Amino acid sequence: MSEHEVSLACPAPLANDERILLAHGGGGRLTQRLIEDVFLPAFQNPALETRHDAAECALPSAHLAFTSDSYVVRPLFFPGGDIGTLAINGTVNDLAMSGARPMWLSAAFILEEGLPLATLRRIAASMQHAAAAASVQIVTGDTKVVDQGKADGVFISTSGVGIIEHNLRILPASVRAGDAVLLSGDIGRHGIAVISAREGLAFESEIASDCAPLSAMVLALLEASVEIHCLRDLTRGGLASALNEIAQTARVRIDINEGAIPVSEAVHGACEILGFDPLYVACEGRCVAFVKSTDAERALNIMRAHSVGTGATHMGNVTAGSEGLVTLRTRVGTGRIVDMLSGEQLPRIC
Amino acid sequence: MSEHEVSLACPAPLANDERILLAHGGGGRLTQRLIEDVFLPAFQNPALETRHDAAECALPSAHLAFTSDSYVVRPLFFPGGDIGTLAINGTVNDLAMSGARPMWLSAAFILEEGLPLATLRRIAASMQHAAAAASVQIVTGDTKVVDQGKADGVFISTSGVGIIEHNLRILPASVRAGDAVLLSGDIGRHGIAVISAREGLAFESEIASDCAPLSAMVLALLEASVEIHCLRDLTRGGLASALNEIAQTARVRIDINEGAIPVSEAVHGACEILGFDPLYVACEGRCVAFVKSTDAERALNIMRAHSVGTGATHMGNVTAGSEGLVTLRTRVGTGRIVDMLSGEQLPRIC
Repeated sequence: MSEHEVSLACPAPLANDERILLAHGGGGRLTQRLIEDVFLPAFQNPALETRHDAAECALPSAHLAFTSDSYVVRPLFFPGGDIGTLAINGTVNDLAMSGARPMWLSAAFILEEGLPLATLRRIAASMQHAAAAASVQIVTGDTKVVDQGKADGVFISTSGVGIIEHNLRILPASVRAGDAVLLSGDIGRHGIAVISAREGLAFESEIASDCAPLSAMVLALLEASVEIHCLRDLTRGGLASALNEIAQTARVRIDINEGAIPVSEAVHGACEILGFDPLYVACEGRCVAFVKSTDAERALNIMRAHSVGTGATHMGNVTAGSEGLVTLRTRVGTGRIVDMLSGEQLPRIC
Repeated sequence: MSEHEVSLACPAPLANDERILLAHGGGGRLTQRLIEDVFLPAFQNPALETRHDAAECALPSAHLAFTSDSYVVRPLFFPGGDIGTLAINGTVNDLAMSGARPMWLSAAFILEEGLPLATLRRIAASMQHAAAAASVQIVTGDTKVVDQGKADGVFISTSGVGIIEHNLRILPASVRAGDAVLLSGDIGRHGIAVISAREGLAFESEIASDCAPLSAMVLALLEASVEIHCLRDLTRGGLASALNEIAQTARVRIDINEGAIPVSEAVHGACEILGFDPLYVACEGRCVAFVKSTDAERALNIMRAHSVGTGATHMGNVTAGSEGLVTLRTRVGTGRIVDMLSGEQLPRIC
């Protein structure tokens, strides 16, 4: 066997101060080394180790949920998380919003030439940590590299497959008049954490992203047979946009109470300084749950038993008679219409 | 009902000369209009129309394949295809390489601010056309927009879920000494088509990409009970890299014959001018099949009955006794080792 073949079988590990080259995306030896040196050790599991184009997954049931998201957050690292934690939790939460048990994730990376390898390693480690916390496996993936200046460090697209074990139709169209609207906790932390990291703003107390997986809490609601009609996580566009989307699709009116919408003092202060309305600021570990009104108290108790739901509130109710309207009763007793986000408040927060 | 609400329910359609704004990725009204005006009409199907975070898919069997790829090809349009056809066929083919029946796709778009809406519409139409041709549905997706200069027009990540209906283990590790190695047709057209579009090269006859779905051909082989041990499509790194990867994983030696590797005269000429070796140039509608030797003739006849396999050949054989070696017998009877692609030959061809 020639020396050359030995080097094929045992490539020198990539040094941490190396940078991403175009050839790391070329499908040849450098791509192979990147996979072997960064991704396989970080995400190790049997499906990934078959080194095949598609992962094979055996299903215990025959109904699945499938979702996909790209993550382009800037900066890559922020208080409470980074693009890696976001890429896992965001996709886990989209599956959870169908009431599915998240199982398998894919991760497709678009890397900018010149990215420090140490940055990629740190992101891969975050992803693995988040995947373990959410009980999912990263079973397949892809890496592309584009020329310097043609991307912004790292973009990650994650897709997810989950198993649906319930017989409910958890969908905007299932929302009906009389439903209780529950909010899982305080809003606005993710958006403020990212914007303060991006702009180098320092508030009195550091505001950390709420980025977290919601699946365990949702599965607990389902196990307790809470009649859930719809779930929605509060990402881009925030609480206001999520409620408007649901109100429009279900053709109902949603009345919410400002006093039942928790906003931390720090987020409230930051929003005042920045001129933002917390109702439109993104979360990455918060959701609304539309449930049968008689199940509301029981659901709240279950949500509050989970770390992501300690601050859960009965925020409002669904009424009939309007096509897609969200109204807010303020703390001082006046009412106003809560509109959908128009234009862009905070670009690239996920 | 106020005028304002009417405008919510019936947004003015996006004009074709509009350009992508950051707010099209903000999760608010403009995101909603982009989805309603471009993606829903292009990809229409019931799963997508639920407008929920994850698509729900009912499975007839309980074993699935799951894959993901990002597409960053430059330019976006090239002879024989565009980034849209590539994004569908590439992911369909990755599923087919597991012997799975491709079923559901997701599409996550990263758009550069300022992208003409007409370009996005054209790509979405290509995707729908390719999806219909491959009998798959685009059931879920996502759109992010990044600032001008932070991406390169459009990047698309597609994931796919397919159903595995066979009991074979179609994997590199299943390859064994004695296997016949079949090639589905002429190589190198995709890479040359893209590079000539990018560099504005004009060859005597236009070279069109071979971009096409391989799933129908693979399913026909499985239906005929051909004993397939491994399949691999010949994308980045080309035939040489695909064979090397398989030889290394299966710890076998693969001997191939140059005379049985079809290369069109046009591709051959272009490679000579550009200094490329066709063995390393990407295809997007070609694969190798490792089959039990006694099934080789029958498999070739089945492959040749499909438009993507008319040029199929018995290109070589697997022998034992070496860890990960690919050898080529040239047309003049000499032999040489075919190495893995080292470095980058053609960046961003998919």
